[in-house]
Amino acid sequence: MDTTQPGLDTAPLDDEELARIDAYWRAANYLTVGQIYLLDNPLLREPLRPEHIKPRLLGHWGTSPGLSLIYAHLNRCITARGLDMIYVTGPGHGGPAIVANTWLEGTYPELHPSVNHSEEGMKQLFRQFSFPGGIPSHVAAEVPGSIHEGGELGYALSHAFGAAFDNPDLTVACVVGDGEAETGPLAGSWFSNVFLNPVSDGTVLPILHLNGYKIANPTIFARISDEDRMSYFRGVGYEPFLVEGDDPAAVHQSMAATLDACFDRIAEIRADARRRANGQAVRPRWPMIILRTPKGWTGPAEVDGVPVAGTWRAHQVPLSGVRTNPDHLAMLEAWMRSYRPEELFDATGKPAPELLDLHPRGAQRMSANPHANGGLLLRDLVLPDYREYGQETEGHGRTTGEATKVLGKWLRDVISANPDRFRLFGPDEVESNRLGAAFETTDRQWQADVYPTDEHQAPQGRVMEVLSEHLCEGWLEGYLLTGRHGLFTSYEAFIHLVDSMFNQHAKWLKTTNAIPWRRPIASLNYLLSSHVWRQDHNGFSHQDPGFIDHVINKKAEVVRVYLPPDANTLLSTMDHCLRSRQYVNVVVAGKQPALQYTSMDEAVRHCERGLGIWEWASTDEGRSPDVVLACAGDSPTLEVLAAADILRQTLPRLRVRVVNVVDLMRLQPDTEHPHGLPDRQFDTVFTADKPVLFAFHGYPTLIHRLTYRRTNHENLHVRGYKEEGTTTTPFDMVMRNDLDRFRLVIDVIDRVPGLGENAAGLRQQMEDARHAAREHTRTHGEDLPDVAGWEWPH
Amino acid sequence: MDTTQPGLDTAPLDDEELARIDAYWRAANYLTVGQIYLLDNPLLREPLRPEHIKPRLLGHWGTSPGLSLIYAHLNRCITARGLDMIYVTGPGHGGPAIVANTWLEGTYPELHPSVNHSEEGMKQLFRQFSFPGGIPSHVAAEVPGSIHEGGELGYALSHAFGAAFDNPDLTVACVVGDGEAETGPLAGSWFSNVFLNPVSDGTVLPILHLNGYKIANPTIFARISDEDRMSYFRGVGYEPFLVEGDDPAAVHQSMAATLDACFDRIAEIRADARRRANGQAVRPRWPMIILRTPKGWTGPAEVDGVPVAGTWRAHQVPLSGVRTNPDHLAMLEAWMRSYRPEELFDATGKPAPELLDLHPRGAQRMSANPHANGGLLLRDLVLPDYREYGQETEGHGRTTGEATKVLGKWLRDVISANPDRFRLFGPDEVESNRLGAAFETTDRQWQADVYPTDEHQAPQGRVMEVLSEHLCEGWLEGYLLTGRHGLFTSYEAFIHLVDSMFNQHAKWLKTTNAIPWRRPIASLNYLLSSHVWRQDHNGFSHQDPGFIDHVINKKAEVVRVYLPPDANTLLSTMDHCLRSRQYVNVVVAGKQPALQYTSMDEAVRHCERGLGIWEWASTDEGRSPDVVLACAGDSPTLEVLAAADILRQTLPRLRVRVVNVVDLMRLQPDTEHPHGLPDRQFDTVFTADKPVLFAFHGYPTLIHRLTYRRTNHENLHVRGYKEEGTTTTPFDMVMRNDLDRFRLVIDVIDRVPGLGENAAGLRQQMEDARHAAREHTRTHGEDLPDVAGWEWPH
Ligand SMILES: Cc1ncc(C[n+]2csc(CCOP(=O)(O)OP(=O)(O)O)c2C)c(N)n1
Ligand SMILES: Cc1ncc(C[n+]2csc(CCOP(=O)(O)OP(=O)(O)O)c2C)c(N)n1
Ligand SMILES: [Mg+2]
Ligand SMILES: [Mg+2]
Repeated sequence: MDTTQPGLDTAPLDDEELARIDAYWRAANYLTVGQIYLLDNPLLREPLRPEHIKPRLLGHWGTSPGLSLIYAHLNRCITARGLDMIYVTGPGHGGPAIVANTWLEGTYPELHPSVNHSEEGMKQLFRQFSFPGGIPSHVAAEVPGSIHEGGELGYALSHAFGAAFDNPDLTVACVVGDGEAETGPLAGSWFSNVFLNPVSDGTVLPILHLNGYKIANPTIFARISDEDRMSYFRGVGYEPFLVEGDDPAAVHQSMAATLDACFDRIAEIRADARRRANGQAVRPRWPMIILRTPKGWTGPAEVDGVPVAGTWRAHQVPLSGVRTNPDHLAMLEAWMRSYRPEELFDATGKPAPELLDLHPRGAQRMSANPHANGGLLLRDLVLPDYREYGQETEGHGRTTGEATKVLGKWLRDVISANPDRFRLFGPDEVESNRLGAAFETTDRQWQADVYPTDEHQAPQGRVMEVLSEHLCEGWLEGYLLTGRHGLFTSYEAFIHLVDSMFNQHAKWLKTTNAIPWRRPIASLNYLLSSHVWRQDHNGFSHQDPGFIDHVINKKAEVVRVYLPPDANTLLSTMDHCLRSRQYVNVVVAGKQPALQYTSMDEAVRHCERGLGIWEWASTDEGRSPDVVLACAGDSPTLEVLAAADILRQTLPRLRVRVVNVVDLMRLQPDTEHPHGLPDRQFDTVFTADKPVLFAFHGYPTLIHRLTYRRTNHENLHVRGYKEEGTTTTPFDMVMRNDLDRFRLVIDVIDRVPGLGENAAGLRQQMEDARHAAREHTRTHGEDLPDVAGWEWPH
Repeated sequence: MDTTQPGLDTAPLDDEELARIDAYWRAANYLTVGQIYLLDNPLLREPLRPEHIKPRLLGHWGTSPGLSLIYAHLNRCITARGLDMIYVTGPGHGGPAIVANTWLEGTYPELHPSVNHSEEGMKQLFRQFSFPGGIPSHVAAEVPGSIHEGGELGYALSHAFGAAFDNPDLTVACVVGDGEAETGPLAGSWFSNVFLNPVSDGTVLPILHLNGYKIANPTIFARISDEDRMSYFRGVGYEPFLVEGDDPAAVHQSMAATLDACFDRIAEIRADARRRANGQAVRPRWPMIILRTPKGWTGPAEVDGVPVAGTWRAHQVPLSGVRTNPDHLAMLEAWMRSYRPEELFDATGKPAPELLDLHPRGAQRMSANPHANGGLLLRDLVLPDYREYGQETEGHGRTTGEATKVLGKWLRDVISANPDRFRLFGPDEVESNRLGAAFETTDRQWQADVYPTDEHQAPQGRVMEVLSEHLCEGWLEGYLLTGRHGLFTSYEAFIHLVDSMFNQHAKWLKTTNAIPWRRPIASLNYLLSSHVWRQDHNGFSHQDPGFIDHVINKKAEVVRVYLPPDANTLLSTMDHCLRSRQYVNVVVAGKQPALQYTSMDEAVRHCERGLGIWEWASTDEGRSPDVVLACAGDSPTLEVLAAADILRQTLPRLRVRVVNVVDLMRLQPDTEHPHGLPDRQFDTVFTADKPVLFAFHGYPTLIHRLTYRRTNHENLHVRGYKEEGTTTTPFDMVMRNDLDRFRLVIDVIDRVPGLGENAAGLRQQMEDARHAAREHTRTHGEDLPDVAGWEWPH
């Protein structure tokens, strides 16, 4: 293994450049320490006194000097080479370092004039950090130039790659903590380079921040052999460059030389790839950097007799109790003065001119790059008229169709119409989720080897498939945050893998809604189409409809959940989702051949309503019903209709109302969710006092949770998934969970006043029907033809 | 990079051995195809007819021949070397292959006598697979020898390592799919070898199943260069051996030679490490295998003009429509006959004697190894009397203590008392969660380099820290499933990372409850102690109490949620959890200095009740109150008590009842959860008609969801986390979410009939108090002394 690094032996910076970059770095470090510690006396005009110190010392020093070193050196390269670059901070807890840099670059003062380049502005900068009413400790949405908060570790690289796709001139510098690199999601992200096209996509420059420690432990990457570490990064396809040391001047030279080498290499790779027209797949060996410097570098070496800088003790706040411990106070002052603030800032608090000279100007500043405020660049999708893709239907519940297959045709044309701003992401399930029509117009993007037997693997393509839900989600988030559009299709059960990533994204959206300079971005759209009821060949481990429960815990203003029952409602829903902004839309839809209930016209109106009475299936003639049968989701809708059919045939005088819910948020009060139906309207549909049987796609408690404040909640009885599953037939699955048509009829008999005794015969027939249906599956391995072949006969 | 492999050039099998192992493999393949396709005619005594074929063809052929090849060869080694081994199947969708092997080994027939070694038994075996009322398609809990279903991909290696810890003589063969290897959790698992001690732990032998494809895509690992692949696996610390080919005889020889080399190497490494007494950390370069054979090997090469074997098309069922397509039927028959069943089974369906000779006997069979039915080996923990570790209290709500710190002392002694069967897992948060006392008796297990400045890193230790929640969870699950005990401590927000892993484990527990031969295992215990209310320095991204919402979607019989409000209740709760079996216990508790409410005696009784009235805090004198103030969680309990104090001082005649809930499941009806309080009892505590204000740790809807069926639900008003957060003070956090004492007093005024107008002055004072409290934080950066220093004064 060859580990010699180009550039290590050269010293590209002349004395002045070296002095300038070091001053810039010292300034950033000074401002970082100031944010963590100081309430006042920002320029240290007088000796530090306890009252200058914050009462609560919050923040993470350890990672900060490294982050600022990288930032300063990237600035030099941006200016020298005219690069278009953004910065993704894996260790987002180093918030004060990044904020310091945005202040030095002038972006922060532009957005927040009171935090300007003055003594008072610097005081504000210090005070507001991690302070009530101030700014958060992380590189959150409040920080200009950030698309990645870095609170929950693991997504830096996938966000970076998402940002780079379809941005051929962009470079995304991505700092990965050596602790962060232990997480599964991060470990699974390195191979993103297999998917990045050097012609049509930009470049990610990963920088492993090998400062040796996480919180209280050393990191794995810091304690394996150099050879293994190099071997690992070569294995994932990179050319790793090592920058190592603790002498600032030497590290500056090495870092400058290495970055020069990396950007030369990147330029070469790009030029090379772009030279060959419509070239074959190439997977270039992109450069990456391993930066090995001490954690908490330039901070206190020893505190109270134990080493701090260069150990895990530097992670958060190296000096504690500074208000009460005069020694610590003195150490803090010495530490801050070691950066020689008098050289860095003039008497008014303004950064010295040579600092201001270092950083790029205008939108070239990483903190002002529009890619990091994607809404600025967002262009609408060109959407073909979905009405023209509708499934032809005859009557209601008689035509069979495959919802996602129908959607696939429309998606194909969405892809064609938006070749530079829409991508489809999935863990190798695009084909199995019946969206294969996409491949009539595009391919799966893939730079690794292709065999003659392969289909639809190509250097460029709009479909991104990798067996990692984390990577799909991270790429898509990065893609959206930089102003593009996309759709993630996954098994319903396994989307739980990204529960926590969804959380972070939803929080980001909520936060940005309140930040005036952040522009709205396209919604994050999920299509969950291998759902709980149709895991015929996978069984229990693949049966979990709980993602939507998880989603609705987040702020109502950012989440939407749809359960279109058939192809046309799915088309209408998806068109709506792809036009929306600042939401997370979850769409659950079937991929199996199933009955179609709505014509295109009806679908449009039904989806606009969000929920509605299906007159054609009801026998209440628009007047007060005896019972309401409500449903949400394709399988429950089928069972409700089959139950309504039985009731119509056996109890012709019973007035049954069938209600279908597409937009789940309609069920909530309008005080809780912007889509919520006002109580009066809700009561009109669900009545104030009649039994309501709700056949639901997911866990029944979700419906109760949405409706517990409604007038008629006492009479609401919900059937849904009760965690009973296995490999079996579709009808056996609904029977196991008491969601089947026969059970629903029994529920009606048991709940409609006056029916009980009078329908005892029917009740027994229904029990027998369940028994017969179950027996049939046990003998023949498939559902009864009458059940499987049922159609709406009226 | 040296890629030459020992063993590749040798042919260790003589003709007879080769013939035998090949026959065994053919038998397993035959039985696999039979399970996927046949209802009848298992021995192909007559030509296949459509009615012999299952109506629904479900299952995954592609991975199966590889899984069986490995199984057969491992069997040979177990017998030859007397190994103690279990088999973890990453691609768990290859269920029929593993079931076939358990049948050949005789384990399956022992457990299910009707599925015996006879023609009728074989017919049963075929029929039941993926059949309604039969067995699932995956290597689920129903499959003897499995500790890993492999439905949700990504956890094979972490489970395998969990099984190996503290089992020094065990070898865990772990097959990893090349698709699975793309997942984040799997990619983050390779470095588990940094934590495995060669003296006191067993060995994991990873086998990368490089069959080239996932569902419809090639895999990354199959399409990068040989050099990069080798480099990757050397980088993660292994010595990779390559077995490659598609000629069975050659692959048999190579596989046998390679396994011999691997087991020699493992024996050497163990002997070597064990020779040096109390040796230093060594991280041996353990062997691993890359098995590169075609997907769907030995299956149809081409179907309907397109290649199948060796392509992605072999993933599931290579021949479809066999009932209706005579060509396919003929191909199926030819395929099955290609295994020469007449040589493999005698006329009665019994496997030929030479097959029965190949596999090990008794508990040496991987399908009968007791480690894979951990409950068989489970021994109780020796638990020191937690009562002796209690926090001394004076009165109620006056002493300050740190709950997890107190727990830490007990945990330390639990660790000491159980040096071979208890481990503590966490993503580098044991110290920060204040459980540092553990390090008085043990260390963090770590085989990589150790520096003089390190603390508590040692080759052996009971604490497992790695910055990967997935790895912590997977290790712990593997450890529990093989009959040991453990505790996972994590930030509350980030435990969502393992939502889906929790799902799979809860499903496993639910399933095993119904499998008579599976013995109960120790519960999976979570301690979430950096919780939503005290993320003072981390902010919004770290604030999410939704894991418990997620958990209670799973079967009531397997989940438990506890919110002990102080140290003594935490001790009592944790003692209970560590004694329990077959549950997932979630315990949310504080780590910050906080008021203590219960003496040890009170704590014991309170936890036994699960919820109860705190008489000392109530003014209802045991009679009907005017209002109930309920609370769950440490921060809400503090606010409720402070509110009760204000009410006592300002409205002395108001009869207030304070109820604290430790066991959240008590709130549910007893029909829904075994811990549920019967309605009558519930109504006694919460009244049938009085306003109940519930201050809750998590999202308010969770309480509604648990109580919507209760008599007094209409009067229940819940305050909790409503997704408003940032970096701020503890009291500002509760104010932002309307959970603060002042807001609770306002709620009382607004809801208790008759108070409104009469308490208008107090209401206004409360508003002013909120205002003042907020202002104070904005000015001083910390909470008002009166608020932060409040104690129960009565
Ligand atoms: C998924 C996740 N788990 C745990 C944490 C808690 N945590 C915060 S910082 C940190 C250590 C990070 O180490 P590293 O990535 O090396 O960053 P640096 O050393 O640069 O601070 C941990 C474990 C987290 N933020 N995210
Ligand atoms: C986390 C997760 N995502 C998606 C799937 C759907 N899935 C089932 S099998 C499979 C392909 C597995 O490929 P590989 O691991 O190579 O197994 P093999 O080729 O041996 O079948 C996928 C994507 C899954 N089971 N788990
Ligand atoms: Mg680090
Ligand atoms: Mg594979």
